[in-house]
Amino acid sequence: MNESKRLSVAILIFPGVEELDFVGPWEVFTMARQIGAPLDAFTVGWPATEITCAKGLKVTADHTLSQAPHADIVLIPGGKGTRPLAENDEFNAAIRTYLAAATWQTSVCTGAALLARAGFLEGRRATTNRHALDFLRTHAPHTYILDERYVHDGSVVTSAGVSAGIDMSLWLVGHLFGEDTARTTQTYMEYFPEPPYGKDS
Amino acid sequence: MNESKRLSVAILIFPGVEELDFVGPWEVFTMARQIGAPLDAFTVGWPATEITCAKGLKVTADHTLSQAPHADIVLIPGGKGTRPLAENDEFNAAIRTYLAAATWQTSVCTGAALLARAGFLEGRRATTNRHALDFLRTHAPHTYILDERYVHDGSVVTSAGVSAGIDMSLWLVGHLFGEDTARTTQTYMEYFPEPPYGKDS
Repeated sequence: MNESKRLSVAILIFPGVEELDFVGPWEVFTMARQIGAPLDAFTVGWPATEITCAKGLKVTADHTLSQAPHADIVLIPGGKGTRPLAENDEFNAAIRTYLAAATWQTSVCTGAALLARAGFLEGRRATTNRHALDFLRTHAPHTYILDERYVHDGSVVTSAGVSAGIDMSLWLVGHLFGEDTARTTQTYMEYFPEPPYGKDS
Repeated sequence: MNESKRLSVAILIFPGVEELDFVGPWEVFTMARQIGAPLDAFTVGWPATEITCAKGLKVTADHTLSQAPHADIVLIPGGKGTRPLAENDEFNAAIRTYLAAATWQTSVCTGAALLARAGFLEGRRATTNRHALDFLRTHAPHTYILDERYVHDGSVVTSAGVSAGIDMSLWLVGHLFGEDTARTTQTYMEYFPEPPYGKDS
């Protein structure tokens, strides 16, 4: 593989980030790397590297947002911490610059509201957590909000809530590195769910 | 709810633990707690609280194994770190004591080998990662190893690789707290996957 074409994936974490929102995509991208996809993944913390997640998991980010290396793909997860961040001008300015330098801007769940605040959902199709449609509409009045598992519109890919970030990340791995890589990633993750209850719940 | 009947869930983490193996179940149990299930969940680190996972995520556990509170449910995830741990006598003695005090002994992926080393799979049906069947057989010669998404045998519940821990945890939440709680947990996690590729991969 051509080392000069390695892609970097930055996964943002912040106080109140929902755990599976970011660890699901992290697992997808790092598993793809393990099987040979030319990518590097790292976590980016706001405002600092020490993060307590929405459900209490304590994680230390690789970098702070202000000192993070360039990323080709930026992924913004959701969680209750997105609500104060959507109103935080300092964060909004910092993430807008970081997103603008990337090739791909992606989100999971209510992370879409942060993409919107940074101006990346203007006139685009997007999705979010089913229980947060009004929250996204508030921050994204000119966005076509769809009830889909994930939505790709130009350089922006948004996904529905929590576990949907896994599906979106598998799609992006397939798009960037080929279907074989995505299928092998999915197989190694044994991501062929058989939850005990069906969708009629 | 009766506070005296709250159940505690301990999720073990260790160097080389696979990220989604433990964060998937963590999300299930803590989401169930959020919607009212009488449970508490915490992470238990071996040998210390500072853990670097298999793919590089850095996590800080709530307790060390030697100082962890009693748990009604102990979950042992998998990952490459299980291989040295399976040969570690000090760990094996510590986890055996901790597991024996619990009502439920559970594993994801190659965590089953650690349950086996601690004596909990003797004569039982169990499962593990599809790519680790020989590894489990080495440590569990008297175990009926099945190719299932998750297997329940008495107080022991084992699951297949990585994402299968989510399915197993949803089953256990349903078993302990009722189907309605498990269904609502699944709905809040939006765990109705639509990965881009099918199982024929």
